[in-house]
Amino acid sequence: MPRDEERFAALAELAVGGANVQPGQVVAVGAEVGQERLVRAIAAAAYRRGALYVDAKLFDPYLKRARVDLADPATLGFVPRWYGSRLRTLAERGDARIGIAGVVAPEAMAGADPARSGRDRLPWLAETGAVVAARATNWTIVPCPHPGWARIVYPALPEAAAYERLWRELWHCLRLDEPDPATAWQQRTAALEAAAARLSARRFDALELSGPGTELTVGLLPTSRWCSAGGFTTRTGLRHLPNIPTEEVFTSPDPLRVDGRVAATRPLVLPDGTIVRGLRLEFEGGRAVAVQADANGAAIRAQTEADEGAARLGEVALVDRHGRVGPLGTVFHDTLLDENAASHLAFGYGFPFAVEEPDRARVNTSAIHIDVTVGGDDLDVTGVTREGERVTVLRGGEWRL
Amino acid sequence: MPRDEERFAALAELAVGGANVQPGQVVAVGAEVGQERLVRAIAAAAYRRGALYVDAKLFDPYLKRARVDLADPATLGFVPRWYGSRLRTLAERGDARIGIAGVVAPEAMAGADPARSGRDRLPWLAETGAVVAARATNWTIVPCPHPGWARIVYPALPEAAAYERLWRELWHCLRLDEPDPATAWQQRTAALEAAAARLSARRFDALELSGPGTELTVGLLPTSRWCSAGGFTTRTGLRHLPNIPTEEVFTSPDPLRVDGRVAATRPLVLPDGTIVRGLRLEFEGGRAVAVQADANGAAIRAQTEADEGAARLGEVALVDRHGRVGPLGTVFHDTLLDENAASHLAFGYGFPFAVEEPDRARVNTSAIHIDVTVGGDDLDVTGVTREGERVTVLRGGEWRL
Repeated sequence: MPRDEERFAALAELAVGGANVQPGQVVAVGAEVGQERLVRAIAAAAYRRGALYVDAKLFDPYLKRARVDLADPATLGFVPRWYGSRLRTLAERGDARIGIAGVVAPEAMAGADPARSGRDRLPWLAETGAVVAARATNWTIVPCPHPGWARIVYPALPEAAAYERLWRELWHCLRLDEPDPATAWQQRTAALEAAAARLSARRFDALELSGPGTELTVGLLPTSRWCSAGGFTTRTGLRHLPNIPTEEVFTSPDPLRVDGRVAATRPLVLPDGTIVRGLRLEFEGGRAVAVQADANGAAIRAQTEADEGAARLGEVALVDRHGRVGPLGTVFHDTLLDENAASHLAFGYGFPFAVEEPDRARVNTSAIHIDVTVGGDDLDVTGVTREGERVTVLRGGEWRL
Repeated sequence: MPRDEERFAALAELAVGGANVQPGQVVAVGAEVGQERLVRAIAAAAYRRGALYVDAKLFDPYLKRARVDLADPATLGFVPRWYGSRLRTLAERGDARIGIAGVVAPEAMAGADPARSGRDRLPWLAETGAVVAARATNWTIVPCPHPGWARIVYPALPEAAAYERLWRELWHCLRLDEPDPATAWQQRTAALEAAAARLSARRFDALELSGPGTELTVGLLPTSRWCSAGGFTTRTGLRHLPNIPTEEVFTSPDPLRVDGRVAATRPLVLPDGTIVRGLRLEFEGGRAVAVQADANGAAIRAQTEADEGAARLGEVALVDRHGRVGPLGTVFHDTLLDENAASHLAFGYGFPFAVEEPDRARVNTSAIHIDVTVGGDDLDVTGVTREGERVTVLRGGEWRL
């Protein structure tokens, strides 16, 4: 493993390559206070590619905490209008965006009143969905190692050792241990895109998931289209890799046709950091009618009661055994990593772009989106065609179609 | 001295009081990466006063350095248009602004090519002048102690000791060692405002400055009005204290009528950190015709050659012996502190608000503004009326009019 500066430089190269930064673009970087070293490395890499300007926005969760604790609760939904206009201008200009994931200060929001903290959605912006849907910007999200993150991922290790281990595991997940990481990602995403194309071509009516504690049928919409990060282009035809790492193919299912039971195969980390262990679900007619867990079942139940769509599925995603996150067995406490560990379902909002126009209104809507990992190499996935034919999709973690 | 958290909290109270933050206001905070602790304390204090939202913008000088070193030089003047529109919207709304001064990373720009770094003026924004002139926002600037700042102010001290000394000296300059700092500032600024009013009432034609190495006549414009930070109100009548600390009364002189010689009484720190020592100037017809120094004379000469107005004066300011910065004898490497140490002159742009309409076009204009300290308790300041009467203004650091 190279030293910190070189590691951040390598990760930054991956980021500007994943976003496919073009000469003359503004590169908007969204990061958290504490991630400056990666932001600076990204700036250097972006300017070397001819970027016009790197516009970094550093979010401070402690400022959010001060607001949640002290501001008038009625004002917690306020967002300055220049936040949205910045994003809209980036979209109009066709600029690049790089999001930095990972945890820095897990304690910042600890113990905050959830009724209050839920009203301040920042740094999330309402405009983001439309900008993504319009394919107006080329963008990516990459994780940034930080000692504060390492501490919650490997609580038994001393801080320096935990930080090194986080770097080592992320280095592997990011394929930075390959001789040519960019080529390795091209190959991996080409394989995912091919699997997605084969799945889409079969136009399955439903998927059957079968594994330890899981016997579930997930109905698909007539035009459900399987997607992967390898297929993302802007409206002007610029390819970009929206997540690094990415190991999944996914679509949005029929929110009214999900039946059976599911046992989550990994702990689930809620947005506020609560860890749900031993989660078991029962679905009837698309709705989770029983939500139980060995630890923190009440927290996940509260999430599934957030709104009408919160107890229904917005996403089903398949991950083969060539993904790099799952085999580590690490719970990263960050969706970018954890959702790529294995096949998963997500409560809450779905992706209108994952279906054709006639089905767009049928995709699930909700304010939440919570991934539940159901996969592992012992999960069998079978596709059921409209004619009732059953086709093996994934077995032992290998694609069979 | 209380501990760090309490010190930042006390400084934050001074800041929100100085800006006079009102319920329902957005509070824009401009700070540098590394000053988060003060920003967070300001956020807490602002929300306690009923602020709607604290919008912190953290500037990272290392990002600027990456740009200056690596971006196409022709693009270095580019500023994203949402930077200016944010400021204009704050002005339209009549919001509050808090700027945080002080040094964090003096090494960030060290060794950068000045021809390139001079083209990137950020975080300065072209819109700021108009917003200030329109008195659209209530604002203040306060300093933030930081170990990186302490290191250059007290290079002979170990880091922890230097940081403690910086806090102790700033604590005194900020009048936080008074039982009621807010009241202490009200009294001090009332005294400054009274002195400014007496000076304005005399409508002097010129000032004569006389001290060790200094014999200078500074012509004033017919409507030159003496100002102090104590007299600032917004267009809606909200009082605010734009600088904390502030010890000066100042006006803009006649840029064509400055004659004589000046010996700077303190080292002068240029914007890029260069320290000019033993500066001696000669003026003829308003223009510095000789600029010499014991150290780094070439650097200050280059500044005075920046443009047509750079070798002429935009400001003359008087500081009495009750100011707290000067007696410390410390060079703070930051204008907010150093310009309040003693009476000073400034090369470069003047203040249109410091004269009446008929003289506005006569105030000096330039891209630069560099303060040269000429004062000390041994500087005699004499006012000369239009009738030729000579009136003692300041002697031994005490007002005499």
